[in-house]
Amino acid sequence: MTKIYENDAELFELMRTRLFTAVVGDIMDQMNLRRQFLPAGIAPLQQRTKMAGRAMTVLEADVFDDEPTDARGPLSHKPFGLMLDALDDLKTGEVYVATGASLRYALWGELMSTRAQYLKAAGAVLDGYVRDADGIEGLNFPTFCRGVYAQDQGPRGKVIDYRTTIEMGGVRIAPGALMFGDREGVLVIPKEAEEEVIVRALEKVETENEVEVAIRKGMSAQQALDTFGVM
Amino acid sequence: MTKIYENDAELFELMRTRLFTAVVGDIMDQMNLRRQFLPAGIAPLQQRTKMAGRAMTVLEADVFDDEPTDARGPLSHKPFGLMLDALDDLKTGEVYVATGASLRYALWGELMSTRAQYLKAAGAVLDGYVRDADGIEGLNFPTFCRGVYAQDQGPRGKVIDYRTTIEMGGVRIAPGALMFGDREGVLVIPKEAEEEVIVRALEKVETENEVEVAIRKGMSAQQALDTFGVM
Amino acid sequence: MTKIYENDAELFELMRTRLFTAVVGDIMDQMNLRRQFLPAGIAPLQQRTKMAGRAMTVLEADVFDDEPTDARGPLSHKPFGLMLDALDDLKTGEVYVATGASLRYALWGELMSTRAQYLKAAGAVLDGYVRDADGIEGLNFPTFCRGVYAQDQGPRGKVIDYRTTIEMGGVRIAPGALMFGDREGVLVIPKEAEEEVIVRALEKVETENEVEVAIRKGMSAQQALDTFGVM
Repeated sequence: MTKIYENDAELFELMRTRLFTAVVGDIMDQMNLRRQFLPAGIAPLQQRTKMAGRAMTVLEADVFDDEPTDARGPLSHKPFGLMLDALDDLKTGEVYVATGASLRYALWGELMSTRAQYLKAAGAVLDGYVRDADGIEGLNFPTFCRGVYAQDQGPRGKVIDYRTTIEMGGVRIAPGALMFGDREGVLVIPKEAEEEVIVRALEKVETENEVEVAIRKGMSAQQALDTFGVM
Repeated sequence: MTKIYENDAELFELMRTRLFTAVVGDIMDQMNLRRQFLPAGIAPLQQRTKMAGRAMTVLEADVFDDEPTDARGPLSHKPFGLMLDALDDLKTGEVYVATGASLRYALWGELMSTRAQYLKAAGAVLDGYVRDADGIEGLNFPTFCRGVYAQDQGPRGKVIDYRTTIEMGGVRIAPGALMFGDREGVLVIPKEAEEEVIVRALEKVETENEVEVAIRKGMSAQQALDTFGVM
Repeated sequence: MTKIYENDAELFELMRTRLFTAVVGDIMDQMNLRRQFLPAGIAPLQQRTKMAGRAMTVLEADVFDDEPTDARGPLSHKPFGLMLDALDDLKTGEVYVATGASLRYALWGELMSTRAQYLKAAGAVLDGYVRDADGIEGLNFPTFCRGVYAQDQGPRGKVIDYRTTIEMGGVRIAPGALMFGDREGVLVIPKEAEEEVIVRALEKVETENEVEVAIRKGMSAQQALDTFGVM
C-alpha cells in the first residue's frame, strides 16, 4: 500500500474533503468493526460540518449543588471540576469528546469554542446539549451534540476526568482514537485499523460513483449488487 | 358528485397542489377515520416536500449478522433479504413504505432513491433512518423518515416481505392505500374512503380561507366557530 | 438601582433586544432559582425567534371522543372545551402557555395565531405539537413547541381551565409570570425576582463580552475564570 498521507494534518484534510461517514462505516462493517457509530441523535450544529481529529476524551458527572458545604469529594469545591483543565489542555487536531452527564444542561458553549479554536482543536462531540449556538456557528467551530439548551452546567455537572477511555452508547473511545463526523453521524475509528479503513473507503467511493451512473441509466438494484457488489 | 379527477396521476397532482395533511386529517376525523396519521417524528427530509402516491408496503426485520454460517432461515444468506426485489418492483406512483426495523441503521439511501426515481415511484416513507441525505436531496426524491444516520443495513436488517399489510404506530397500511405527506405528517387514506375525503377536504380549504379573513378583521374565535363551524 | 424600564412594553423590548436565555438562566442560578427552564425540546418554530411576555396559563386534558352521548362532564359537549374562551381572553403582551395534553395532536395552529396576534399577544408556548406551521411562520407569531404534527385536537383534547397555575417538567408557572424564550429554551422568571434578574443579566452580558475578547487574545480558560469569575 502506498502511503496516501504523511501526517495527521494530511489525513484529516483527506477525510474532510473526500470521505463521508456512510462509506467509512461500510468499510468498518466489512472489517467486522460494527459498533463504531456514536448513537443517532448526536449531530452537527451546522448541517454542512465535516470534522476529523483525534479524541481528547472527557468524563462528566452530574452534581446537584455548586457550594455543598460539607461535601468530601476532591472536586466538590472546584467550579466545573476539571473542565477548564481539560479545555486548556487541548492540542492541535484534537476533538473534545465528552460523556457521562444527564440531559439537563449544556456541556459546551461559545467561550469554550473560542478557547478550543485558539488551541487549534478540530472540534467537539458532546453526548448532551450545547449553548450559545449562534456564537459557535459564528466561529464555525465543528460541534456535534444532542441539541441546544441554555441551562448552565455550573451547579449541575462537573468534569471528573480526562484523557481516559470513555463509552457512548456502547461505543468505546480511547484517547487518540480517530474521530470522523458529518451530517449523518460520528464514527470512532480505532487507531490500529485506521490506515486500512481510509484506503478502502477511498476505493469504495469510486465504486459507488460507478453504481450511481449505472442505476441512473436503468440498471436494476439486483444487477447492480451482482455487478459491483455494492447497493 | 362530479368526478374531479380521472386517474391517479390527476389525483396525486390535485393533492400535492391544493391540499395539506391538516385539512385531510380533519375530514377523516369527521368521517370517524381517526387513526390515520403515522406517528409524529416521521417527517420529510426537505421541509417543502409534498408527496401523494400509493403504498408499496415493505416489512423489515432486525438481524445481527450477515454471514451466519449455520442459520436456517430462507433469507439468511441473501444480502438485504428481499430489499432489492421490493425496490425493483416499484411501479409508477407507488411509495416505498417500510417498517419493522429497530432504530439502529438506515433503511434507505441515495442509490435506492435513484432507482426508485427511475421507476417513477412517488416517494419513500421509512419508520426509521435514511442515509446519503445530501444525495437524496439532490435528487429531490420525496423521502419521509425519522432522521439521518449513516449506519448501514447490511449486517443489521433485512426486508422479509413486501406487498403485505403493515402497521406503523397502530396505523394499518394496506398495499395500494393512498399515502399523503407534507411537513406536518403522513396520512394513510383507505381506498374505499378516498374520493369522499378528497372532495370534502377541497371544500374545507375554502371555508378555512374565509375564517382566516374574518379573524384577521377581528372576529372572535367563538364567533368563528359559531359562524363557520371551523376553528 | 435606577429603573431601567418603565412598563412591560419597555421590559419586553429590552429583553428581546439585549438579553438571551443563557445569561438570564445563569443569573437565576446565582439567585438560587434553579428550576426555571422549561424542558429541552420546547423550541421556537423559527430559529431566530425571541419572545418576552406574561404567562396566560392554559390547562389541557386528553379526551377520546368529541360526541360522547352519555358523558357527564361539564365540558364534554363543548367543542375544544374552554380553548376558544382562553384564546379570546388573551391580553396585550400575554403568552398562551399550555400543558396537560399527551403527544398525540396539535395544540395550536394558524387560525389561533391569527386571533392571538390580533389581540396583541406576545406568543405561544405549547408543551406539545402545533400545526399549520407554514401559516404561523408567515405571520411571524412567536411559537414555541415540541414539533409539528397536523393531527387535530377536536376529538382528542380539550382545554379544561385557564389562568390557573400549571407546571411543565416540574417548572411551576403562575399566571402573569414573566416568560422569556429564544432558540435555546424558554425561561419562567418569577414576578418577585424579575427586576433583579434583568438588571444583573444586563451586567453579565457586558462581562461575557470582555471574557470573549480576552480568550480570543489567548487567555486560558482557567485565567478567565480567575479574572472575571465567568467561563
